Formats: sequence, C-alpha cells, structure tokens
Amino acid sequence: MKGKFITFEGCEGSGKSTQIRLLCEYLDERNIPYICTREPGGSKVAERIREIILDKDNAEMGDECEALLYAAAREQHLKDIVIPALNAGKLVICDRYIDSSLAYQGVARGLGTDYVEKINHHAVADYSPDLTVFLNIAPDEAFLRKHGADKNDRMELQGLAFHRKVYGGYLSLLKKYARIRPVECGGTKFETHEKIVALLKDEGLIN
Amino acid sequence: MKGKFITFEGCEGSGKSTQIRLLCEYLDERNIPYICTREPGGSKVAERIREIILDKDNAEMGDECEALLYAAAREQHLKDIVIPALNAGKLVICDRYIDSSLAYQGVARGLGTDYVEKINHHAVADYSPDLTVFLNIAPDEAFLRKHGADKNDRMELQGLAFHRKVYGGYLSLLKKYARIRPVECGGTKFETHEKIVALLKDEGLIN
Repeated sequence: MKGKFITFEGCEGSGKSTQIRLLCEYLDERNIPYICTREPGGSKVAERIREIILDKDNAEMGDECEALLYAAAREQHLKDIVIPALNAGKLVICDRYIDSSLAYQGVARGLGTDYVEKINHHAVADYSPDLTVFLNIAPDEAFLRKHGADKNDRMELQGLAFHRKVYGGYLSLLKKYARIRPVECGGTKFETHEKIVALLKDEGLIN
Repeated sequence: MKGKFITFEGCEGSGKSTQIRLLCEYLDERNIPYICTREPGGSKVAERIREIILDKDNAEMGDECEALLYAAAREQHLKDIVIPALNAGKLVICDRYIDSSLAYQGVARGLGTDYVEKINHHAVADYSPDLTVFLNIAPDEAFLRKHGADKNDRMELQGLAFHRKVYGGYLSLLKKYARIRPVECGGTKFETHEKIVALLKDEGLIN
C-alpha cells in the first residue's frame, strides 16, 4: 500500500519545526512508521542546492534562478527520499513543499503561480500531498515570537513586507486547495500539537 | 542599439573552446567590442550551480533535477552577464545555451523538448540567440580527437551511447531552427575558423 504524504507550511517563525518534532514524538510513541524530512534539502544533492539558495552572500540571485533551484532540489528530494518512502508504505512528513514555492516565489516574488506550477511538474501533477498543515500565524506576530530573522539565511533576511506577501500567498492557496488545512496557533505549542493530531486522525492519516 | 547574441553548440570534443578562442582573437585584432562567456556558469551564483551539475560524485542526480539546475544557471547568467552586455550594445559570444539543454536533457535524457522549453521560459521566449554556430562532428570522431572523456566531469562520463543521442538531438534541432547553422569541422581548426568568420560576416553580425 502506498504511504501518505503530509506537508507542513507556514511563514518563518510559525513553529513548523516544533510542531513537526512533537508530531514525530507522538508517532514514535505509537510505533507508527514514518520518515521526517525537509525542503529545500533532505538528500545529498538537494542539500548542496539548499546551501546556494540560503547563502546570504548570494544576494544577487534572480527570482527565476531561485524558483528553479527550489524546483531542482524538490525533484531530487522526491526521487531520493519521498517516492521510495511512499512506495514502502510509510507516512512521509515534510517541512515545506510545493506550496512554499507557490507562496514565496509565485506570489511574494511576483513570478506568478502558473510559472511555479509549470516548473514543478512532478510535485504538482504526480506527488501532490494528501494533506498540508498550514500553521496560520501572521508574520508580524511570528517574527516577534522568533525574536527576529536568522542573519545567515537569505530568505529570512527578506524583511517583513516580503513575508507579509508570503502570508497573503498562503491565504490565497488556502482558498484554492482543499488539501491545505489551516491550524490556528495562537495558544501554547501543546494546544497546537493537539489540533494537528486531531486533524490527522479525522482525515484517517493516523490512528 | 541592442547587441547581438551568438551561441556555440556541439558535442564534447567538437572544438567549441578552440573556435571561440580563435574568434575572440579575430575580434580583438579588429577592436570589435564583445564579451565571451559560457554555460553553465559565467557568473558567481551560476558557477556554484555548475559545480553541482558537473561533480562526478553526484551520480545519483535525477534528470529533472539536472535540467532544472541548467535552467537556473541559465537564468542567473542571463541576468548577470548576457542581458547587461546586450543592453550595452555588445556582441555576446556564449559557449553553450538553450540548445544544449534541448539536445542533452530534452533528447538524450528523454525528458522531451517541450519540458525543457517550459522550464527555460526566458531563454526560449525573450533571449533567443541571433545565430547559433553548430560545430558538426559526430561524437565518435570527436571523442577520438579529444583522447577520451574528462574523468572529473559527470556529463563527459556519460558514455558514447549517450553522446550519440545528444548528436541526434542537435541534428533534429538543426531542422527546426533556422538560427542554428552547421559548420563542418573535418578540416584544420583554422579552416573551421574561416568558415565561422565567413558565416558571421554573411549574416551581418561582424564587419
């Protein structure tokens, strides 16, 4: 049986890493087989592409180049990690996927979601997530909680106006794709975790 | 006045580097302003992408990832080098461009030229070369002349069967695009050089 593919999306500081860690602990305790991975990166070649994308010294990187590098890393990560795990019947939990490219490069960079879909053929057509958890917190609040941006990360350094556009992009994706489910995360991290577990149970993705 | 964009194409060992060098010497002697550049690479970010593409240790790289990395390097190189030079009215001479992706990834890797055109939007739509010199020599003969492949170059290591497919790809592009002009290079390098100069003069690209 083919495994299930769950992706996590949200702005910087939305708590994706924390929520993914809590979910993995939950799955570990119940011996549910899964893999936990991330984008961009997650496998050797994809991690080398990640280094170029996030390097703060690459400030001159063009928007199309950035979008194509994300798409390249995504294809390699699908091939190396996601597809083999799904074929082995595992639950795949991935930190960021196609919706990040749609929100960041398509909307916030202004390349258009059509362009991003066109260069992400496999991610859009053949390996669409079964469910996408969107951690719904506005970037203003998320940045406060995170105590500012990581100074070594080119994407985090884009400034609040950019991240507000990203958030707007996510909100428009929410209206378009039923698979993307917003999870309000105004409470404690444990409250948010419980909402995510309840959602995955409701959708029959975990027992 | 916008400059002119001339690309060189051909299989490994077809003599592109030599012919580009001879052409640059010709232009230098006549004080014709030009820039000479190459793909993949040619600018800082694009050269970092080149390293990943050609690294022989990345044998697991998928075909889509490879095609997207070439497209990413191309976009960055266009932005950093080609477009500013064309806008400054210069002649731009480039070692490989979109046709390499069409022949190598589209045909030889089997991704299809439609896919390659789709992910190379700007190179296909907005910055098509004014003229493409195709150094027409079959890979069997070219490899002999070159004394085998560069053992540190992932693309050169693909083997003769792959490079024969690339050559077939180029021959099909020749039929499709009038801008691609075959130059037979069975004679000496100086004879080939004279053919190229004559072609560029005929086309009004140099005086």
